[in-house]
Amino acid sequence: MKILSEKVSFQTQGEISIVDLTIFFEQLVDKSGVKNGILSANVIGSTGALTAIEFESRVLDDFKNLLNKLVPKGADYKHDLIDSNAHSHLRASLIGPSLTISIHEGILQLGTWQQPVFVCLDIKPRSRKVAVTIIGE
Amino acid sequence: MKILSEKVSFQTQGEISIVDLTIFFEQLVDKSGVKNGILSANVIGSTGALTAIEFESRVLDDFKNLLNKLVPKGADYKHDLIDSNAHSHLRASLIGPSLTISIHEGILQLGTWQQPVFVCLDIKPRSRKVAVTIIGE
Amino acid sequence: MKILSEKVSFQTQGEISIVDLTIFFEQLVDKSGVKNGILSANVIGSTGALTAIEFESRVLDDFKNLLNKLVPKGADYKHDLIDSNAHSHLRASLIGPSLTISIHEGILQLGTWQQPVFVCLDIKPRSRKVAVTIIGE
Repeated sequence: MKILSEKVSFQTQGEISIVDLTIFFEQLVDKSGVKNGILSANVIGSTGALTAIEFESRVLDDFKNLLNKLVPKGADYKHDLIDSNAHSHLRASLIGPSLTISIHEGILQLGTWQQPVFVCLDIKPRSRKVAVTIIGE
Repeated sequence: MKILSEKVSFQTQGEISIVDLTIFFEQLVDKSGVKNGILSANVIGSTGALTAIEFESRVLDDFKNLLNKLVPKGADYKHDLIDSNAHSHLRASLIGPSLTISIHEGILQLGTWQQPVFVCLDIKPRSRKVAVTIIGE
Repeated sequence: MKILSEKVSFQTQGEISIVDLTIFFEQLVDKSGVKNGILSANVIGSTGALTAIEFESRVLDDFKNLLNKLVPKGADYKHDLIDSNAHSHLRASLIGPSLTISIHEGILQLGTWQQPVFVCLDIKPRSRKVAVTIIGE
């Protein structure tokens, strides 16, 4: 049994940034030597989220617009009295902080047009980290 | 330590199909021989999602109606200029691509009225796959 | 390789209760002796959900208000004909039943203002359980 426990780090570019994590994850799977197992990833910080999406600019814009519509910025949130990012927290909690992906014969089991992404919902550019653990044999 | 890495395959019946994965997962837990561990599952493809729900026809209909309300079809999405399934992608990314379930003494730790489900959000019937990995002892 | 398979139990206080799971999870990580690995948690029951949020009273209130707005109680749901908690199920399925967190050098990889939480969406106080499995070395 092999375990690789690492962090992926990157810079985001303000509200809303969506970062394709595919290449980071593939490199860690290679490094781990795991042929069959799982990759578990979770956001560090409460204004980011993980999900999967087709990494195509139009649908990424559509996703940002959806979040702006479902959870509008500055909609009389109580948390905005002490900070100005209530909407960032709410969007992150709704999407969720983690995901898992199966690894089979050394390959992450994803569709061709399906990319794991970090959704940065914070109101300013930030240095972000995603914790990644790979377990398998 | 035991690892089972498989795919579950099934046919969906158009927008929106919700497939109960319980029997598939239980069979794989039995096959794995794992008594204590986890089952990790993720959708392959970006127009499907995984969650849990009471598999009862009325609440399933309510969930479909909720998705239609929160993420309406054809609401001036940019992605619809190149395809006609922007809403499918957005709903999938909002719900999320993966889930994990604990296995204790060979039993998936779920409630009696709680079923793991695949939510097919694509606009036409499709052959779908869910990657499943079971790790434990 | 070590595996710890347990359940966390607690009492909730009616609609909507949000329970900070940090201390429960930290105690189980200590008990497991796992230094590098993952913690997987899933709700048992279909009217609860898991996510992460800053455990600050204002943003918790904002999250409850958001759920009330996105998935209103009693909005002509079909399931309400046989029960009165359709909105509880729908909110739970939207947020999701599970999460995973990496463990590195014996520490759960979370931000300072980021807490894993159980969101009890049921309409009355209940005794709830979360299944937790820790795998690693």
